[in-house]
Amino acid sequence: MNNAELMATLKKQAALIDVVMEKDLTIIESPLLAQIIRHAIFQGGKRIRPLLTLLAASLVGPPPAETARLAISFEYLHAASLLHDDIIDHATLRRGAKTANTIWGMEPVILAGDYLHARAMAVACEVGGPTAMALIGRATAAMVESEFLQMHNATEMLISEEKYFQVLTGKTAALIAAACEAGIACNHGSAEQRLALRTYGTNLGLAFQIIDDLLDYLGDPGKTGKAVGNDFQEGKMTIPLIKTLEQAEDKDHETLVALLKATPQERREQLSTAHALIEKYQGFVLARAQAELLLTEALAGLVIFNEANTKAHLTALAYYVLNRDK
Amino acid sequence: MNNAELMATLKKQAALIDVVMEKDLTIIESPLLAQIIRHAIFQGGKRIRPLLTLLAASLVGPPPAETARLAISFEYLHAASLLHDDIIDHATLRRGAKTANTIWGMEPVILAGDYLHARAMAVACEVGGPTAMALIGRATAAMVESEFLQMHNATEMLISEEKYFQVLTGKTAALIAAACEAGIACNHGSAEQRLALRTYGTNLGLAFQIIDDLLDYLGDPGKTGKAVGNDFQEGKMTIPLIKTLEQAEDKDHETLVALLKATPQERREQLSTAHALIEKYQGFVLARAQAELLLTEALAGLVIFNEANTKAHLTALAYYVLNRDK
Repeated sequence: MNNAELMATLKKQAALIDVVMEKDLTIIESPLLAQIIRHAIFQGGKRIRPLLTLLAASLVGPPPAETARLAISFEYLHAASLLHDDIIDHATLRRGAKTANTIWGMEPVILAGDYLHARAMAVACEVGGPTAMALIGRATAAMVESEFLQMHNATEMLISEEKYFQVLTGKTAALIAAACEAGIACNHGSAEQRLALRTYGTNLGLAFQIIDDLLDYLGDPGKTGKAVGNDFQEGKMTIPLIKTLEQAEDKDHETLVALLKATPQERREQLSTAHALIEKYQGFVLARAQAELLLTEALAGLVIFNEANTKAHLTALAYYVLNRDK
Repeated sequence: MNNAELMATLKKQAALIDVVMEKDLTIIESPLLAQIIRHAIFQGGKRIRPLLTLLAASLVGPPPAETARLAISFEYLHAASLLHDDIIDHATLRRGAKTANTIWGMEPVILAGDYLHARAMAVACEVGGPTAMALIGRATAAMVESEFLQMHNATEMLISEEKYFQVLTGKTAALIAAACEAGIACNHGSAEQRLALRTYGTNLGLAFQIIDDLLDYLGDPGKTGKAVGNDFQEGKMTIPLIKTLEQAEDKDHETLVALLKATPQERREQLSTAHALIEKYQGFVLARAQAELLLTEALAGLVIFNEANTKAHLTALAYYVLNRDK
């Protein structure tokens, strides 16, 4: 199969995941609750987490039929965390559409997040038992802990690469790693196989977030649905900027630090200055190289599996993450 | 044992539950997260839900050692829902102390609620497997659904007793019933025994909430930690008022409806009018009689068990609920 064919199979599987979610969500009684949850789930989304669960399970052998239900629990958890994140960040737009909190306000959206969260865990435990639940429990704990770490880091102005990756590991990579590992576990894979997929997921998750950081500076707003330079304007230290600060000569370092101390308004006006300095010190190139390295490591770990077809899909997914423009 | 001795044993068990929670919560890494969760859990609380899990398990036979861990998951869920409820209600006081959202703001408290929620489910699934998890999943879904039902009801001014009980069943009784049923299930009780405890828990939960409604009108603020007449001031239809409206002659009915349409300020000024009308139509007496009836039914269902000592404790707990002043 060539890459286009691989991506087409993944799209087909994503559509099947949507069917499973559609059916599962008919359990909801309140029309408003159903509406909010459907908005959270079907307003876009790439289904990367449930696809990974299905692919990981396929590495071990033909996956049991209920694997798709285990898989959706990871999409639910992801959607639940986005609902609460958007409240916390007072976000008004996601995937080019109004956020749920903008449409319905805080009250029902906190509750809808709680519902999805509980549903995720109920479904995961029903299908995957205490093993899947332990994976999900640890991933959720890591997500919350990393948000607290991020809040703590926000009190310092300059963040080290190490601290930044510590946050990313909890915030994005933990759930993706759990989605991968759960696929192996539900198909009775070995401890070695679980470790390989946990590593694949962690590295893929970190690379995913680095690409997100790059798109924030370099993306086409028409495709990403987000304004360029958002992170910088908010004073967020992400990988391109962190790498630049590590390399910058004193004068340029001072310029960037002064901008980080300035107001969001000033940072918006000086975005091109920051952009030029990141270019000068190869912040974008270095960040991209790191994402590529992480994906190479992720894929290297798959050597222990024989399923060539599934490995090809996991490789295609990794390159999709690397080359996505939205 | 007399009642004082029974309550003393329950207090001792509650203290043991606190020890189990203390130990379990050392898993939290972020100091701020730990602080918020400790505030949510150890700032008061009667531990009724975990006590019920332990007592229910004892009805079947000596409970397995890990029952205490299953029990704490119900206290965690309760605390998680209070954290989110207080954000939604913009509540500033609970149990006579500042609410977490008042102290730390919305952001970390939403996340702390998510953490506790996930921890509850992870612990429950670890100890009680998919059976306990299914009970918790259904109870959480019922809690959220009932909040949506309540929001929907709020668009109507007069609520029927039936609709009111429908909300209460999801909001308070479902989790208490799940805590009871999980105790039976974890000790391998029969379907009949599970049903008996689910019924006990549902009725106890409904009675608990009726007493809450009565305390809102009749309680001593020094003990309840809440102002008298809060519910009426907010225009909340609770059982004493619903029963009064059912009985009231046209003129009195109109007076109450006019007050419900008035401003909170006007309702605060006219609280004594409402109070007098509820007295006139025996709204308080009828509400209390209903709570007593529910508890009688709750206890009648325990006849299938032989464990006299545990039944005595469950009876003491029921009367504690009925006679509490805070």
